[in-house]
Amino acid sequence: MELAQRMEKLGTETAFIVSAEAAALARKGHKIYPFHLGDMNIKTPENIIEAAKRAMDNGKTGYAPTPGILELRQAIAEDIGKARGLDLTLENVSVQPGGKPTIGKFIQIFMEPGEEVLYPNPGYPIYESMINYYGGVGVPYTFFETDTGFAIDFEGLKRSISPNTKCLIYNNYQNPMGAESSEAEMKELAELCIKHNLMVLSDEAYFDMIYEDKGTSITSLPGMFERSVILYTFSKKFAMTGWRLGAAIGPKEAVEQISRLNVNDESCSNHFIQHAAIEALTGSMDGPNKILEILKARRDVVCEMLNNIKGVHVHVPNCTFYLFINVTGAMKNMGIEDVEEFRKLLLHETGVSFTTRRHFGTPLPGETQKYIRFAYSGIDVDQIKEGLRKMKEFIEGYGKE
Amino acid sequence: MELAQRMEKLGTETAFIVSAEAAALARKGHKIYPFHLGDMNIKTPENIIEAAKRAMDNGKTGYAPTPGILELRQAIAEDIGKARGLDLTLENVSVQPGGKPTIGKFIQIFMEPGEEVLYPNPGYPIYESMINYYGGVGVPYTFFETDTGFAIDFEGLKRSISPNTKCLIYNNYQNPMGAESSEAEMKELAELCIKHNLMVLSDEAYFDMIYEDKGTSITSLPGMFERSVILYTFSKKFAMTGWRLGAAIGPKEAVEQISRLNVNDESCSNHFIQHAAIEALTGSMDGPNKILEILKARRDVVCEMLNNIKGVHVHVPNCTFYLFINVTGAMKNMGIEDVEEFRKLLLHETGVSFTTRRHFGTPLPGETQKYIRFAYSGIDVDQIKEGLRKMKEFIEGYGKE
Repeated sequence: MELAQRMEKLGTETAFIVSAEAAALARKGHKIYPFHLGDMNIKTPENIIEAAKRAMDNGKTGYAPTPGILELRQAIAEDIGKARGLDLTLENVSVQPGGKPTIGKFIQIFMEPGEEVLYPNPGYPIYESMINYYGGVGVPYTFFETDTGFAIDFEGLKRSISPNTKCLIYNNYQNPMGAESSEAEMKELAELCIKHNLMVLSDEAYFDMIYEDKGTSITSLPGMFERSVILYTFSKKFAMTGWRLGAAIGPKEAVEQISRLNVNDESCSNHFIQHAAIEALTGSMDGPNKILEILKARRDVVCEMLNNIKGVHVHVPNCTFYLFINVTGAMKNMGIEDVEEFRKLLLHETGVSFTTRRHFGTPLPGETQKYIRFAYSGIDVDQIKEGLRKMKEFIEGYGKE
Repeated sequence: MELAQRMEKLGTETAFIVSAEAAALARKGHKIYPFHLGDMNIKTPENIIEAAKRAMDNGKTGYAPTPGILELRQAIAEDIGKARGLDLTLENVSVQPGGKPTIGKFIQIFMEPGEEVLYPNPGYPIYESMINYYGGVGVPYTFFETDTGFAIDFEGLKRSISPNTKCLIYNNYQNPMGAESSEAEMKELAELCIKHNLMVLSDEAYFDMIYEDKGTSITSLPGMFERSVILYTFSKKFAMTGWRLGAAIGPKEAVEQISRLNVNDESCSNHFIQHAAIEALTGSMDGPNKILEILKARRDVVCEMLNNIKGVHVHVPNCTFYLFINVTGAMKNMGIEDVEEFRKLLLHETGVSFTTRRHFGTPLPGETQKYIRFAYSGIDVDQIKEGLRKMKEFIEGYGKE
């Protein structure tokens, strides 16, 4: 079977391989502590489920308009606009079957083959995959560890900009690091985008997963909205990962182009789920508040227990449900060089399953610290405690027999 | 805003423009008889809705595996395999968020830029759009009207094949014509595909919308399955157009490539809907049988009434819910040359809303007959009668005042 060459340029999420490894071990009877995937073991709030059921009963089972039903586009414009200080109308909104579809569609509408796109590394691996697939040149920018978390390496970022740079992908409240821009960092980034006339994908998948205070969108800074597309998703805030609903939000002209792709790719997003999404945005906020509360309790337990393991250090992030954990010391103490070897050893010997820096982009020259990534969205506190006790015991006792 | 040039090559479904025109008239208080869109005004069978509700209650609200949940892939392999005489396993199945996603994904995995793809014209407009968008050359093949329906113009098709032809798109039980291949026609087409080593997209969206007897898939002919991808959808058989669920079915190697695209494009299809789809395939067939019964009754009324209008002729197709209606005589009697003018006149003067040959590809040299397309999936018998009485009166009385 002769495949088209473009398929060679397509990447993937290697985190799914870890998921498969863990599942295979589980089938053999091993106890697994799943910290590897950003899925949620929290059920969607009941009011949203009930709204979906009502919509089905009301016969909302036929096609919806390609950019989404008017009432949902209106609700998204109001809610997302209000949270970001943007004055949006439904013409700024194209409903999507998830958050992810906005990544490839943004690349398609703005990036010519051969043009450069700046993207975060470590970062969500689909950015690089879609840039390469559509013939662009992915140019990574990275982060350095500070006393309190992670900050963008601006010197490196600036050096990477060329006359051929067309777009920048920005994922504040970041996966995998839980990084959050300071006001100054976001401002500096915005000024850079304006100066170099870059189009911006603002991946705001975790904009509402903030434990103290509220989020800020780079699209609300002067001169930014007109050059940006926001990736919005219902997945995390409302524990709706498996529902597949999100939106591309931006200037009317960009949003219309994105909807043109939807006409060709998927016709429309599910009809009755769009009605459930209206309830999500306009109904009781008890559900999302409870989700944040559960996640915060987990975060506190995981961070405290991890920081109590010798040679392991993690900042306590104020956002996302990810932890980017420095295990340089622990690996050194254990005499392990390779973070993948560390991951596999822990998985097989303790059942604690996680991804590493490797699953979030190609390591860059000069990286000396070793990181693993935990997601605590899919595991309860009692299992967290049990797993991390085993992890501590194994790491601290390694080679001591 | 500077858009990427590839967007200029992207087509659309112009039928949506008719839909918008009709909706605008309806808002002004005009009575509309909607024959323009292939949506269904029949609700999804209750057992499927109940299964979706149960799955939501059971917490199937998190991510599903990218190619679909195992039980659904297995159920599709069994059901679709049995109906086509194919021996399938779940490795032959990649669940998709609708039928449409398989079109673009088939083109992406097989067609190099510059290669030629044969596609039906009149036909579903997304074929041509996706061929062009991914840099290929769409080469139309057409049909001629016979005593009983429509047949592929084989002489034209053969002349169009070149050493650069890579794929053929085949839509038996065809939209917009309701065309159905004879055994001989399908065999000849299969032999041609094998002889010229073409990869085949078998769009089987209407495979189960057959009123007498059962369908045949070209993929069941010798030497064909290994070069084919079947577009399967739950949309029509189960009145699930707005649910957005389907599958790409084919050789393991092709299906794996399609799932790689899904990892990048949409992560997965909705989780709880996949459970509802298992019920659709394995539960009571009362629902789909009832749907066919309703549609058949409509077909009989529409065809009889249309054939009773002077200068209008339609074959009674055994499949789909579309009619490709020859209005050459009526237009001649009315002194109208342009089928779009005819469409707009009827829409404004009678409220009968339909699409024309123009919405299904660029007219080809030598076309002398004028056709309009009716979908009877979205309108009840009483409304059909009322609308077509007005249509008859208007056409036959035109210019007689």
